[in-house]
Amino acid sequence: MTTDLLPTDAIPQGFQYNAVKAGIKTSGNLDLAVAHAPQGATAAAMFTTNQMAAAPVIVGRKHLEIGGGVIHTLVVNAGNANCATGEAGYNACKEVCFTAAELFGGKPQEVFPSSTGIIGVPFPAEKLMAALPAAKEGLGNAPGHIEHFARAIMTTDTRPKTAHATIEVDGITARILGVGKGAGMIHPQLGPPHATMLVYLFTDLQIKPLYLRNLLQAAVEPSFNSISIDGDTSTNDTVLLLASGACGAVYAPGYHPQVEAALLEVCQSLAHQIVDDGEGVTHVVTLQINRAHSTADAKKIAKAIAHSPLCKTAWSSADPNWGRIIAAAGYSGVHFDPSRVSIHIGRHPVFEHGTVSPSFNKAATHATMQQREFTITVDMAQGDASCRFLTCDLTGEYVRINADYSS
Amino acid sequence: MTTDLLPTDAIPQGFQYNAVKAGIKTSGNLDLAVAHAPQGATAAAMFTTNQMAAAPVIVGRKHLEIGGGVIHTLVVNAGNANCATGEAGYNACKEVCFTAAELFGGKPQEVFPSSTGIIGVPFPAEKLMAALPAAKEGLGNAPGHIEHFARAIMTTDTRPKTAHATIEVDGITARILGVGKGAGMIHPQLGPPHATMLVYLFTDLQIKPLYLRNLLQAAVEPSFNSISIDGDTSTNDTVLLLASGACGAVYAPGYHPQVEAALLEVCQSLAHQIVDDGEGVTHVVTLQINRAHSTADAKKIAKAIAHSPLCKTAWSSADPNWGRIIAAAGYSGVHFDPSRVSIHIGRHPVFEHGTVSPSFNKAATHATMQQREFTITVDMAQGDASCRFLTCDLTGEYVRINADYSS
Repeated sequence: MTTDLLPTDAIPQGFQYNAVKAGIKTSGNLDLAVAHAPQGATAAAMFTTNQMAAAPVIVGRKHLEIGGGVIHTLVVNAGNANCATGEAGYNACKEVCFTAAELFGGKPQEVFPSSTGIIGVPFPAEKLMAALPAAKEGLGNAPGHIEHFARAIMTTDTRPKTAHATIEVDGITARILGVGKGAGMIHPQLGPPHATMLVYLFTDLQIKPLYLRNLLQAAVEPSFNSISIDGDTSTNDTVLLLASGACGAVYAPGYHPQVEAALLEVCQSLAHQIVDDGEGVTHVVTLQINRAHSTADAKKIAKAIAHSPLCKTAWSSADPNWGRIIAAAGYSGVHFDPSRVSIHIGRHPVFEHGTVSPSFNKAATHATMQQREFTITVDMAQGDASCRFLTCDLTGEYVRINADYSS
Repeated sequence: MTTDLLPTDAIPQGFQYNAVKAGIKTSGNLDLAVAHAPQGATAAAMFTTNQMAAAPVIVGRKHLEIGGGVIHTLVVNAGNANCATGEAGYNACKEVCFTAAELFGGKPQEVFPSSTGIIGVPFPAEKLMAALPAAKEGLGNAPGHIEHFARAIMTTDTRPKTAHATIEVDGITARILGVGKGAGMIHPQLGPPHATMLVYLFTDLQIKPLYLRNLLQAAVEPSFNSISIDGDTSTNDTVLLLASGACGAVYAPGYHPQVEAALLEVCQSLAHQIVDDGEGVTHVVTLQINRAHSTADAKKIAKAIAHSPLCKTAWSSADPNWGRIIAAAGYSGVHFDPSRVSIHIGRHPVFEHGTVSPSFNKAATHATMQQREFTITVDMAQGDASCRFLTCDLTGEYVRINADYSS
C-alpha cells in the first residue's frame, strides 16, 4: 500500500497537482502545494477540535458550508500555520482564496486552504499569491506531480507519505489516493466538520457530499483518530476527501463496501506512516485493548498508556517494564479489577491474575521489544468492546527536536 | 520553611523516628523507616485513585477503617512498591504489620504500612521483619532521626524533603512536621481515603479523626493534587496525617484557622520540593489560570499545559513558544473564545486578542524563562474561578533516567 514510486494507474482521474517554492520555509524547499479539479469535486472534511483553530481551518469549514460541498482548488502551504494570527491572518487566508479562484476558476468558496508550520507568525499571503501562477503553470497528474505535492506539505517529516487503492465499482475501475504529513503535535481529535496532521484524499468516484461525509467519518475514527505521537492535538489538523466523479462510477452506500474498505485501508496506511515518521521515533507500538466495557473505555485505557512518559521511555530501551503499563491503565479513569486483566507484549504474557505472569520471560520479551514494531495487548475481561491504537516511544531525540530554541 | 537542618523545637512531641538498612535497595542505602507514637495517634490518610493500587494502599486503607483511625506505628520501605504482587504481596504486607505490632505494641490494624520502588517484584517481607528490631532499638526524636527517616524513603529523589511549622493554639505551642518523597511517576490524584508520592505529616495537636480527615483533604487539594512532574499517577501515592495530642492543645474546626494555614503551608512546601527535585527537572513552572468558568475548567487547562510534551520541552530551553501553550489550552476540553484569552510569562505579555501581544519581547521573555522558576499566567476572561498548578520541564535527562533498561 505504501508507495515510494506511485504507479501511474493508481492516480485518480479528474485532478491535477503541483508544488512550487514560495519562499515560506527557511530551508528554501517546496512549500506551496496545489490540487485542482477542473470540473470541481464534491468535498467532505474533518477538522481539529482544538479551540485555538487556525485561520485556514475556520475558512475551510466556512467554504464547505457556503459552497455546497464543492471544491475546485486546494491550496496548501507549509512553514507557517496561520494560527493565532488574529484578524490579519484570517483576512490573509481569504485573500489567498480569492486570488486562487481568479486564477484557477470557480468561486472563492470553492477554494480550500490549508496551512502547517509555526504558530503565531504573521502569514505571508503575498508570497503564496506571487507563487500561485507558477503553481498553475506546472499542473499535471504524473506520479512526479504527486510526489512534489507530498514533499511540499512536509514540516519535520523526514519523508513524503502517500497511499493508494484501486477498486472495481459496478464494473468500472475507481481509485483512491491519499497524501499526508505530520511528525509532531500529533494526536488528532477530528470532529465532524476537525490538524497539524494534514491529509488529502482524492477519488475519481462520484459521491454525493452527504455520503462523502459519512464515508470520511467512518474511515477517520479507526485511523487518524486512533493515533498519537506526543498527545498534543494540533490547531490545524485537517482531513479532506475530494471526489471528482471522473471515473464514471457512482458510489451508493450499502452497495459498495469495497469503497469503504479501500478508503479505510488508505487512511490506516497514512496513519501508520505518520506515526512511523514521528519525531525521534525508534519504536512503533500498537495498543490492542480487548474485552473492555465500551469502546470509550478501551480508548481511555489506550490513550493513558500511549501518553504515559514512563511507558514511552521504557519502550525506547525495549524495557519490558509491564508495571508502567498496568499503572497507566490504572489511572485512565476506567474502573476495573486488576486481577481479571492480562497483558501480552508481542506473544509474551507479562501480567495476569494481578501480578507478573508465571511464564514471564524477560529476555524473550526484551528481544521482541527490540524490533521496530510490536504490539501490546491488554485484555480487560470486562465486556466485548475493543480498540486498536497506534503510538510510539519517547526518545532523547524528540526532546532535542522540540527543545531547540530557534522558533 | 524548607529545612536542611531541622531545629529541635520544630519536632512534634509524641513521636519517635528511626531508619535502618534492610537490604531492599540495591544501593545498600537506608531503606526502612519507622515512626512510632507510644500513646497512639489519630490518623487520616488519602491514597492514590489508581485502580492498580499497591498492597500497602489496600492494607493501610483497611487498617484505618477497622482500627477506628488510630495508628501506633508507621512502617515504610523504599526499593520495592509491593504493587502488582498479587495475593503473596498482600499477605507479605500484613505479615510485616503483625510483626511490627508484636514488637512496637498496639494491634496489627494500628500499624500503617507504606512502600515505594519498583512495581511487580516479589515483596521481601523477611528482610523488613528482620530489620524491625534494630529500627526499634534506635528510635528517637532528634533532628538526625528525622533526617534518616526522610533519606530512607527516597527513591530517585536527590535530596530528603521535610517542612515544618510552629503555631500557637489556645496559648500552647503546637508543631506540624512533614516528610515527603517523590521525583518520578508524579501526578498525585488523591481521593478521599489515595501515591509514589509518599508524605507523612506529624502534629502534636489533639485532633479527632473526623476533623483530621477534613483538615487533610482541604490541605491536599491545592498542594499535592495540584502538581505534576510527568502526568503518571502512581499506584502507591499516600499522604498520612498523624496527631499525637502530646502538646496538650485541642484543635477545634472554625476556631483555629492558624492550624489549617500551617498545615497547608507545610503541604505546599513539600509539594514544591517534590517538583523541584523531579527527574531531570531544570525548570519549575507555576501555572496560574485565572478567570475560568469553574475551578474544574481551570484545572483542565492547567493539566493540558502541564502534560504537553511540546510545552515542557520548550520550557527546557527557555523557548517563549507561546503558541504551544495556547494550543494545549485549546485541546484541554474547555470551550473558550481565543480572542478573549491573554497569556503572560513572568510579567511579559505574550498572547492577547487571539494573537501575539503587540508588546511581546522575545529576548526579555527568554531571559525570564532562563531562571529556574517562572510563572505562566493564563487569563481566560470567562468567569471568576482560578487555580495554581505546579509543574516542570521535560529534559533529555528525564528520558535517560526512565529509559535506563535495568529494571
